[in-house]
Amino acid sequence: MTEKTAVYPGSFDPLTNGHLDIIARARRLCDRLILAVLVNDEKKPLFTVEERIAMICDNVASDGGAPVEVLEFSGLLVDFTQRVGARMIVRGLRAVSDFEYEFQMALMNRRLAPAVETVFLMAKEEYSYVSSRLVKEVARLGGDVTSLTPPAVADALARRLHR
Amino acid sequence: MTEKTAVYPGSFDPLTNGHLDIIARARRLCDRLILAVLVNDEKKPLFTVEERIAMICDNVASDGGAPVEVLEFSGLLVDFTQRVGARMIVRGLRAVSDFEYEFQMALMNRRLAPAVETVFLMAKEEYSYVSSRLVKEVARLGGDVTSLTPPAVADALARRLHR
Amino acid sequence: MTEKTAVYPGSFDPLTNGHLDIIARARRLCDRLILAVLVNDEKKPLFTVEERIAMICDNVASDGGAPVEVLEFSGLLVDFTQRVGARMIVRGLRAVSDFEYEFQMALMNRRLAPAVETVFLMAKEEYSYVSSRLVKEVARLGGDVTSLTPPAVADALARRLHR
Amino acid sequence: MTEKTAVYPGSFDPLTNGHLDIIARARRLCDRLILAVLVNDEKKPLFTVEERIAMICDNVASDGGAPVEVLEFSGLLVDFTQRVGARMIVRGLRAVSDFEYEFQMALMNRRLAPAVETVFLMAKEEYSYVSSRLVKEVARLGGDVTSLTPPAVADALARRLHR
Amino acid sequence: MTEKTAVYPGSFDPLTNGHLDIIARARRLCDRLILAVLVNDEKKPLFTVEERIAMICDNVASDGGAPVEVLEFSGLLVDFTQRVGARMIVRGLRAVSDFEYEFQMALMNRRLAPAVETVFLMAKEEYSYVSSRLVKEVARLGGDVTSLTPPAVADALARRLHR
Amino acid sequence: MTEKTAVYPGSFDPLTNGHLDIIARARRLCDRLILAVLVNDEKKPLFTVEERIAMICDNVASDGGAPVEVLEFSGLLVDFTQRVGARMIVRGLRAVSDFEYEFQMALMNRRLAPAVETVFLMAKEEYSYVSSRLVKEVARLGGDVTSLTPPAVADALARRLHR
Repeated sequence: MTEKTAVYPGSFDPLTNGHLDIIARARRLCDRLILAVLVNDEKKPLFTVEERIAMICDNVASDGGAPVEVLEFSGLLVDFTQRVGARMIVRGLRAVSDFEYEFQMALMNRRLAPAVETVFLMAKEEYSYVSSRLVKEVARLGGDVTSLTPPAVADALARRLHR
Repeated sequence: MTEKTAVYPGSFDPLTNGHLDIIARARRLCDRLILAVLVNDEKKPLFTVEERIAMICDNVASDGGAPVEVLEFSGLLVDFTQRVGARMIVRGLRAVSDFEYEFQMALMNRRLAPAVETVFLMAKEEYSYVSSRLVKEVARLGGDVTSLTPPAVADALARRLHR
Repeated sequence: MTEKTAVYPGSFDPLTNGHLDIIARARRLCDRLILAVLVNDEKKPLFTVEERIAMICDNVASDGGAPVEVLEFSGLLVDFTQRVGARMIVRGLRAVSDFEYEFQMALMNRRLAPAVETVFLMAKEEYSYVSSRLVKEVARLGGDVTSLTPPAVADALARRLHR
Repeated sequence: MTEKTAVYPGSFDPLTNGHLDIIARARRLCDRLILAVLVNDEKKPLFTVEERIAMICDNVASDGGAPVEVLEFSGLLVDFTQRVGARMIVRGLRAVSDFEYEFQMALMNRRLAPAVETVFLMAKEEYSYVSSRLVKEVARLGGDVTSLTPPAVADALARRLHR
Repeated sequence: MTEKTAVYPGSFDPLTNGHLDIIARARRLCDRLILAVLVNDEKKPLFTVEERIAMICDNVASDGGAPVEVLEFSGLLVDFTQRVGARMIVRGLRAVSDFEYEFQMALMNRRLAPAVETVFLMAKEEYSYVSSRLVKEVARLGGDVTSLTPPAVADALARRLHR
Repeated sequence: MTEKTAVYPGSFDPLTNGHLDIIARARRLCDRLILAVLVNDEKKPLFTVEERIAMICDNVASDGGAPVEVLEFSGLLVDFTQRVGARMIVRGLRAVSDFEYEFQMALMNRRLAPAVETVFLMAKEEYSYVSSRLVKEVARLGGDVTSLTPPAVADALARRLHR
């Protein structure tokens, strides 16, 4: 048996229940899961990398499968993946538009690093429409997002958007 | 570390290079891979289950990742999966139409057995259009399928279809 | 105000919880809902038209919106629709493949009868993968379909398929 | 019979013949139709909300189905919908990409307000490619948009873009 | 300048206005267009190959672009294409589901014969939902198909289906 | 025989191997191919029109089918196409998302200029995920793009992005 390390990359700006669902599923498939939080300052994220990492650490259960590490990353995802000793990238699929984009990225990553495999997991159907972008938009308009994110994230969103 | 057993189900009527590509990728992600060959006599397969199993055994390399077992199955896939001690089903994705059908099946399987996870791998782009059905159709019309299947399968197709 | 009569057509072979979800939604949008059960003997349905009509009558709540009538139909859907005094056809959408087929039918129906409008409703996401065909397939293989159909339908499926 | 009020939301920047087609269809399905014009100043619309409302008022026929009101709105669509006493949101579907986005929004709206139903109507096929964005782009490049918008809108576009 | 010969293959069972639209477009792009009518007796076509060829000959205008020949074919399309001296296969695209299937076939044909190129033309939007299969289904149910096929084809359908 | 002139429009910012693949295919289908390089300064291209034209001229083989001319264009594509005496626009299709957008543009162009036909060619499957946008993104992050673009373009990208 070889140890299986997987990387689940994303902006997590902010963490949603959809992310938590994929994290829980991925932890059952590998021996070690690395959540790779993208440093993307040029896109003006709502939360800093530090805040996003803290959100994840606070909300990922300490048990329930493989151990989880949370790291920030920038640059090419396949370089990061190989640097941390992983050969598996985990992505959640929700809808057809996801599918197209994810396939394009996965094929590019395969060309850049043939030894790294992208593995797709299916989000729970009740999260099929939940994205960080949409959660922020709803929160910005005053909508209730408490069933879409962990409670502390909903609070942080409210504070950040309506102060 | 837990041992990870995965099931890759299909009709394999016949085995294609696309299947071999997914098998090779799946073997890097698990500790044991079970190829589950569907007994589907009512669909009048071109090759018997025994012939299909033999094709797989003859063409899957003895090394190159996790050990492979080839078993026939009938009934519900999730029952078979749990009976062989696996919690992971592997499926190859090629195109959007795949995606829709595969998602429908995977969501149904999840409802029937929440502990079993379906994992999607992306076929090599040069096999994105290769299916058993199309390979049979081309072979039936006299087309050359030697770049789409292992040589012995191409021979078996020719013998079966043009005797 | 004009009375709004809507027709929800289908094979209902058998009725699923996905159908019941669409029926409940449609009843809030019209003043009278006609469930049009397709007589399609050439497709060898599992249940007769009479059985399918009985299943619907037994499982559609007597309150909860517009009154419901259950009728059988054959021939062109738009002719039936106009004959019963309706100008609205209701269809449930689940996935992209639905969408393509439904659009093709709706555009054809519009050409055949411009006064009839097709209205699409979105199935609850937990029923996004539930179809009569898949329910039958799972039941045939011995899977539990009690969360996908009304209890009496699950019983009838078991009796019909495993006697 | 209950009075059926429907809301058809959009930016209408500017009104196109595709919008007029959906408006005409929606008026046959409800007793009162509210056109909800989005105040989206941060997206720098080409026409002000007042101009867009005037365009609609000038071009929607005074007869031909349910009466039409034109209101501006901001904030959450489902809040607006409930505030005006409606329980139905009307959206036009043109293509698969529409479908994905519309479904995501409709599922989110359903979570935010389960009593509000989104209803999809199919645009006339000759308007299947007409969007406000594309009409503006063509007009900006000097193309003739007179068959895609009401005449007064085509004039307003020409004046706004080429003064 | 090289003479450009193109092949437009199909079952044409029966010829529709959608086919005629693609034929007219293809004739402007090549110097000689060969309509290749598939001999597919095992699929039990409604009209014989001879009848289908006659329908095409009767309805394709004698002028309006490149000259048209009508031939029957069986076997591999790329073999036929090369045998008649063509290097271009023309296919009409209507919808996403077309697209997937057409791409799969075109990629397979490219592998079988790299020198042959498949060229996709877009059907007129008013024919986007017209297929031979649907035309037959509507005609069988007594619907009026005179706006979907040439008049003589509509007559032939009526005679064949309702004698 | 009529001379067939085709226009292949794009930003080509920068030229990729996917573009070169479509160019080679298009040259076999027409007698003269005009590469129309879009002047789109408002989108802040990475390379100037002059640089993009030079890249194309340096990398398109001098033989291998119809002669190629490289011109810049702005304004409506159909106006440009007719001005240079062409009646055919060539576009490459890669994936479903392409398809939707391309169809929308092609239908609009057909309305603006019915005499101009859009012809779709299928990119080689190994370039199915290659776009100028993605190539720039990978190069910006330090990834190796030498298998995705001509060598000189890869060099130019490196110099432009990392000086």
